[in-house]
Amino acid sequence: MQTVIALDAMGSDRAPKPEIEGALAAARHYGVKVLLVGPEAQLKRELKNHPSASYLPIEIVNASQVITMDEKAAQAVRSKRDSSMRVGLRLVRDKKAIGFVTAGHTGAAMATAKMVMGALPGVDRPALAMVFPTSAAKPCILIDVGANVDSKPQNLAQFAIMGEMYSRSIFGTEKPTVGLLSIGEEETKGNELTRQAYALLKDLPLNFIGNVEGRDLYNGHVDVIVCDGFVGNVALKISEGLVEAVRYLLKESLKSTITSQVGALLSRRAFVDFGKRLDYSEYGGAPLLGLKGVAIVGHGASNNNAIKNAIRVAKQFAESGINQRIEQEFTSNRAEAAVVAAAAAGESWKED
Amino acid sequence: MQTVIALDAMGSDRAPKPEIEGALAAARHYGVKVLLVGPEAQLKRELKNHPSASYLPIEIVNASQVITMDEKAAQAVRSKRDSSMRVGLRLVRDKKAIGFVTAGHTGAAMATAKMVMGALPGVDRPALAMVFPTSAAKPCILIDVGANVDSKPQNLAQFAIMGEMYSRSIFGTEKPTVGLLSIGEEETKGNELTRQAYALLKDLPLNFIGNVEGRDLYNGHVDVIVCDGFVGNVALKISEGLVEAVRYLLKESLKSTITSQVGALLSRRAFVDFGKRLDYSEYGGAPLLGLKGVAIVGHGASNNNAIKNAIRVAKQFAESGINQRIEQEFTSNRAEAAVVAAAAAGESWKED
Repeated sequence: MQTVIALDAMGSDRAPKPEIEGALAAARHYGVKVLLVGPEAQLKRELKNHPSASYLPIEIVNASQVITMDEKAAQAVRSKRDSSMRVGLRLVRDKKAIGFVTAGHTGAAMATAKMVMGALPGVDRPALAMVFPTSAAKPCILIDVGANVDSKPQNLAQFAIMGEMYSRSIFGTEKPTVGLLSIGEEETKGNELTRQAYALLKDLPLNFIGNVEGRDLYNGHVDVIVCDGFVGNVALKISEGLVEAVRYLLKESLKSTITSQVGALLSRRAFVDFGKRLDYSEYGGAPLLGLKGVAIVGHGASNNNAIKNAIRVAKQFAESGINQRIEQEFTSNRAEAAVVAAAAAGESWKED
Repeated sequence: MQTVIALDAMGSDRAPKPEIEGALAAARHYGVKVLLVGPEAQLKRELKNHPSASYLPIEIVNASQVITMDEKAAQAVRSKRDSSMRVGLRLVRDKKAIGFVTAGHTGAAMATAKMVMGALPGVDRPALAMVFPTSAAKPCILIDVGANVDSKPQNLAQFAIMGEMYSRSIFGTEKPTVGLLSIGEEETKGNELTRQAYALLKDLPLNFIGNVEGRDLYNGHVDVIVCDGFVGNVALKISEGLVEAVRYLLKESLKSTITSQVGALLSRRAFVDFGKRLDYSEYGGAPLLGLKGVAIVGHGASNNNAIKNAIRVAKQFAESGINQRIEQEFTSNRAEAAVVAAAAAGESWKED
């Protein structure tokens, strides 16, 4: 049976163009069938510009509403019952697709996914995990990068378990190291949240290496870094901004002398390589972990390449069975340890 | 009268070598006198390796204790009454020097400075302000980058006033724009702290442009960005880590083909330019704003160039009279507005 992915055709800032082009590319390259979810008439019109759509496995599923970036998540989820997000997530819940991809509103995606698919038993809050390139050969997973703000210590403990499983399932890391993002390596450094989370994390049966700092995101010293979603999202956006600035400054520097212009020309290929390794669109979207189903959230500024890669990530996640493994994890002794640790810290494990 | 700067000779990770070399360079290039504060015997021994010390205005001031990076700030401040930090800050309080520089423990520097010098009236918590290079012609000030964690909304309002004054006093920006670091531009986006701080900030007589995102730190869209010190420190360390990774990857990419090796050779000069613009040691240390005196905190990994530049920053700060201007600001109608706003938000202005 063909792998089917439901794609929110109206998510990105320039939707539905990148979505349609990304879907066509994914159908061509990965042999997946893509369900384009959004206003049927508009999508039909757009598809007419792409002759390949007639022979590739692309189908439109109608959804009359669209959640925009400036809406409040909770309100949008309540009021727009026929949004492209909600319809797309229902397709996964109803087994019409094995995964969902959106480049839309992260908060709305998280809230809708939790409502439509439900969270895995033992998971209070699903979280967004993002893969960062490092100067070492292996990537680093940062969790959460924006699905939750004002997280509780037990949320961070759950993020750690999910992130560690991600590293094992998708990258095959044997005993992934897990670090807590803080502002100093010593246990006492950090804020109230990290100090309480530290106490929980060190009692979990994970390869917990203690506090790590921002610089460790890029040096390959740790496989999984755990943080609150506000901090993680700032980390992500700071990185994007810096990469943009580096590119700009590099271009500018290379313009400054004739000698370096020649150099620039000759080393263009090297820059393309370099750019690719730091381009988030190459890594595809970020999975929402802890749900009863696969949901991948892409960047609002996604281009067709990013959408194509997010579809690849959705396929890979569904095939890896990571959700089933996270569920097992939470019903095994690890979860028990987490519950015990949380209780010992005077925190209730279930929070909402 | 000669400008005198007190330098914690024992602050950096490789102290006192970078401190001594940085002090000599600063004395030579900026015409300042440097008081090297630390264990006299050790410093004397080290100075013997530098013949120029005999004719440059360098003096040793004895301090028998050193606060190390792994100590708890509060405890170190209480127990080490003769630390190089404390003795150095006393020199400023007693008008023996116009500014203090350390590359040591940020938390200890903040706590000691607050105790020895005192905070300016109206300032609950001094904050560390850091200048970031942007792809535009002007820099961006991020405040706080690590002096405070678990900040209250009124702390962020005070950081905004101090940061704005920094931008005006040191960079001569006329009406600096001030943004609140969050994870979405809309007022409703963010966490509890940012939503409450937003309400205070919009009532202050500042050029407040609302929420900004991590990427705005590097694109020159805003002059001053306000955040809690945990978030700001993560932002700083993430940036440092990414710059390191970029340098490494670039070097690696450029090695990969003969063509790009030639390119690398030709464009070496351009890379040096580029590196300098992103090298924090070129920008010197970060000032602790809101104190009755000038205190500059450098990076623990400071080299002699960073120390030299931190001394330059201390001199520039002392000469700008920024503390006096911040004090005026807090006793003028602006501060009144802040108090009113804080009261309206149901927060007590004075917190500790």
